[in-house]
Amino acid sequence: MAPMAKEDLAALDAHWRAANYLSVGQIYLMGNPLLTERLRPEHIKPRLLGHWGTSPGLNLVHTHLNRVIKERDLNALCVWGPGHGGPAVLANSWLEGSYTQTYPAVTRDAEGMERLFRQFSFPGGVPSHVAPETPGSIHEGGELGYSLAHAYGAAFDNPDLVVACVIGDGEAETGPLAGSWHSNKFLDPVHDGAVLPILHLNGYKIANPTLLARLPDAELDALLKGYGHDPLYVTGDDPLQVHQAMADTLDQALDRIAAIQRAARDGGAHQRARWPVVVLRTPKGWTGPRSVDGEPVENTWRSHQVPLSGVRENPDHLRQLEEWLRSYRPEELFDAEGAPTGDVLACVPEGERRLGATRHANGGLLSRALPLPPLEDFAVPVDEPGATLHEPTRVTGALLARVMADTARRRDFRVVGPDETESNRLGALFGATGKAWQERTLGTDEHLARDGRVMEVLSEHLCQGWLEGYTLTGRTASSPATKPSSTSSTRWSTSTSSG
Amino acid sequence: MAPMAKEDLAALDAHWRAANYLSVGQIYLMGNPLLTERLRPEHIKPRLLGHWGTSPGLNLVHTHLNRVIKERDLNALCVWGPGHGGPAVLANSWLEGSYTQTYPAVTRDAEGMERLFRQFSFPGGVPSHVAPETPGSIHEGGELGYSLAHAYGAAFDNPDLVVACVIGDGEAETGPLAGSWHSNKFLDPVHDGAVLPILHLNGYKIANPTLLARLPDAELDALLKGYGHDPLYVTGDDPLQVHQAMADTLDQALDRIAAIQRAARDGGAHQRARWPVVVLRTPKGWTGPRSVDGEPVENTWRSHQVPLSGVRENPDHLRQLEEWLRSYRPEELFDAEGAPTGDVLACVPEGERRLGATRHANGGLLSRALPLPPLEDFAVPVDEPGATLHEPTRVTGALLARVMADTARRRDFRVVGPDETESNRLGALFGATGKAWQERTLGTDEHLARDGRVMEVLSEHLCQGWLEGYTLTGRTASSPATKPSSTSSTRWSTSTSSG
Repeated sequence: MAPMAKEDLAALDAHWRAANYLSVGQIYLMGNPLLTERLRPEHIKPRLLGHWGTSPGLNLVHTHLNRVIKERDLNALCVWGPGHGGPAVLANSWLEGSYTQTYPAVTRDAEGMERLFRQFSFPGGVPSHVAPETPGSIHEGGELGYSLAHAYGAAFDNPDLVVACVIGDGEAETGPLAGSWHSNKFLDPVHDGAVLPILHLNGYKIANPTLLARLPDAELDALLKGYGHDPLYVTGDDPLQVHQAMADTLDQALDRIAAIQRAARDGGAHQRARWPVVVLRTPKGWTGPRSVDGEPVENTWRSHQVPLSGVRENPDHLRQLEEWLRSYRPEELFDAEGAPTGDVLACVPEGERRLGATRHANGGLLSRALPLPPLEDFAVPVDEPGATLHEPTRVTGALLARVMADTARRRDFRVVGPDETESNRLGALFGATGKAWQERTLGTDEHLARDGRVMEVLSEHLCQGWLEGYTLTGRTASSPATKPSSTSSTRWSTSTSSG
Repeated sequence: MAPMAKEDLAALDAHWRAANYLSVGQIYLMGNPLLTERLRPEHIKPRLLGHWGTSPGLNLVHTHLNRVIKERDLNALCVWGPGHGGPAVLANSWLEGSYTQTYPAVTRDAEGMERLFRQFSFPGGVPSHVAPETPGSIHEGGELGYSLAHAYGAAFDNPDLVVACVIGDGEAETGPLAGSWHSNKFLDPVHDGAVLPILHLNGYKIANPTLLARLPDAELDALLKGYGHDPLYVTGDDPLQVHQAMADTLDQALDRIAAIQRAARDGGAHQRARWPVVVLRTPKGWTGPRSVDGEPVENTWRSHQVPLSGVRENPDHLRQLEEWLRSYRPEELFDAEGAPTGDVLACVPEGERRLGATRHANGGLLSRALPLPPLEDFAVPVDEPGATLHEPTRVTGALLARVMADTARRRDFRVVGPDETESNRLGALFGATGKAWQERTLGTDEHLARDGRVMEVLSEHLCQGWLEGYTLTGRTASSPATKPSSTSSTRWSTSTSSG
């Protein structure tokens, strides 16, 4: 691939620096947002909260997703696994204008910037993690373990959607996330969209190194290939080199996704695809203070939350914070009114293509009432009390099968469960659809189908995550419960039996 | 490796057939245990319950563990992940005599065999899954997801113990299990014992194929190598061939374990070991009915529970059951009184070496009171109400550190948590021990140590599983909770914060 033009790289870097600046601003500042004067203690919030460590990585991913969305006119959604990096996602939403569109009081100028900063993790303000009110979000930050399952849930039956999913190396240690990698065995490249996992190895969790970041390279590569992925690596701590590598890699990944989809949709592919995964290895707290009070901070766990903690009281910390903020050269990034410059916004897509403005993150705008048949059609005649035996879930199964058949074209209804559809007597469903399955099949298998809309996997975490991702993007999913009385089309019920 | 002598293979096969016979007997029979007469409907239980599908695989593993335990005088424990295969574990306990030792009424003769059969999943009898009352068990069958974490918990600080762990391919789909593979990054070959995972791919769960069984071979191999293991494969459906392969493979695996331990304990090894994992691929419901009512059963999901379901009413099913039972040639396996023959018992170890009689599965026999310091040593002087500020968990940290120091030789105390020891102000612990860690370290790391007894991983499932395995084998573990009030040395408290 030809290297990018210098000015294009510089514009990406400007966007990234702006997002980093805004992230630091949210953690620390309640005044003087553009640093038009020297920083003084009264500009600093009285209580410092927030997670800086993951933010520069999230900002990098958002900047580069912007570029490919705009260049390719992609229909994209992003699930931010390290959603404790709320400052980053908020910063990007403000830069692209989706924040002001949602919250008009937070204008895209100096006054709005001050509001953006002050409200962050502040009484009466906004949460420090990605939250339901964050534009573009379907995934609660801090809900460690479910990002990838949510991403798959969003991609099912959304053939035109690309769902990027940033997975932190902390979250990657959790069981639910570790089990989610196998979701690719259930994704149909014809009727479903694509998931692009971006495993962000910044090396540290709260006070420890992370497991995946310390694996020998060959072991990590084997692991991701074992999960059925084709890994692409971006590694570095020099911004311009990383921008170039990240741009090349996202282009490669999206070209592969397009090729996989084309092959499958042309009817040519009969083997499960090896979808790409991006491994992004950048320093935790990148571009933040290298050391504080003599202790190394950048690229260590000490950058996890607030690297400079005594800013109001300690003049040295105050000076370091000002140097840090000025290192992004805000005067190049924002005009005199505080609006982002043209360079900063060069990569930002328009309208609903913006990650903070996609309808897919706001399922209520997309969902349609399910075509529910009259309940009378499924009435069970009882001539005499206590004289006949009936199995209620068999009746429910017939009803669900009707809904499944009536949504065959719309494809906005799924049944998800831990391999208990049949044992819970809902087997009538298999007259209307199959069980999603992309692996090889044997002659003795029954009901397995690439395009099936019943999903069975022996991980209730995965079931739960898929179901949430599917419904939060405006569709309906139901789960077979072990107890017939709790089967319902809108409520999830867990089941613990192994048979 | 030289092939085994024919008579040794035949003796292993006799033990396996006996265990299979006893497993089927438990599911079906309430009389005529030795088939001394033709099977009649009144010999059959009125309600048929139990899981046959996994049982022949568990019986194979138990038979072969017996052999290596006896030959090598191993101190071994086995965690039976597919513990819904209760009939298999009970059958083996009865064969080795640990069942009768624990429950004297269930004698090792025809009368006891009838009791063993009748009590299984019967009113007033015993559960159909491996349960606390099952000899040799620390892992509730059906608690899918925790087998491997329990096995590691048992192995920590038990340097002479080998913990085999059978993982079913259904359970392997769960998040907690998927995350547990990385436990090997926390196991110290000097002070801890060994865990030998045996991944049993019998291909099916309740009504579906399993994910791992249908992966392309190269992908499965990459996955296990990515988890840091060295995979060894045993595949087949011909019993004598599989006996030979399983014997060779267990010998290889145990030789490697011994070599790893020797190298580490001689002070020679500085890299994390690549421990073996055995992949056992045998048919689900192996040796059971090939087909029932025209449908294939053996090697399909239909063998998951009770392959012949209408035995009392359907003469054809009754005939098939009798053929099935007689296919094990019980007359060769049990003498006229119903006791197992010498051939059957040739592989069985003695005394506490028997898997159903090991003290490690009965932690109460091993646990010693912790050396708790006088609480007064940690009293916080409060001269005046409401006048001073104190952090209770810092005080707790000092107390835990004292206990940690006082158990430095005994090594029967650990603190386990999701990377919150420091943030919950229990950091005083690091004056007494380090954090368990076998990966490479960097100059900026703190407190990481191969032999550390604080364990931090960002998976609460793993924390919970390790802690259970450790305490159920007679030691004490504590967990730092997010809420200071719920920190205690005997209660586990979950924490959900990401920082």
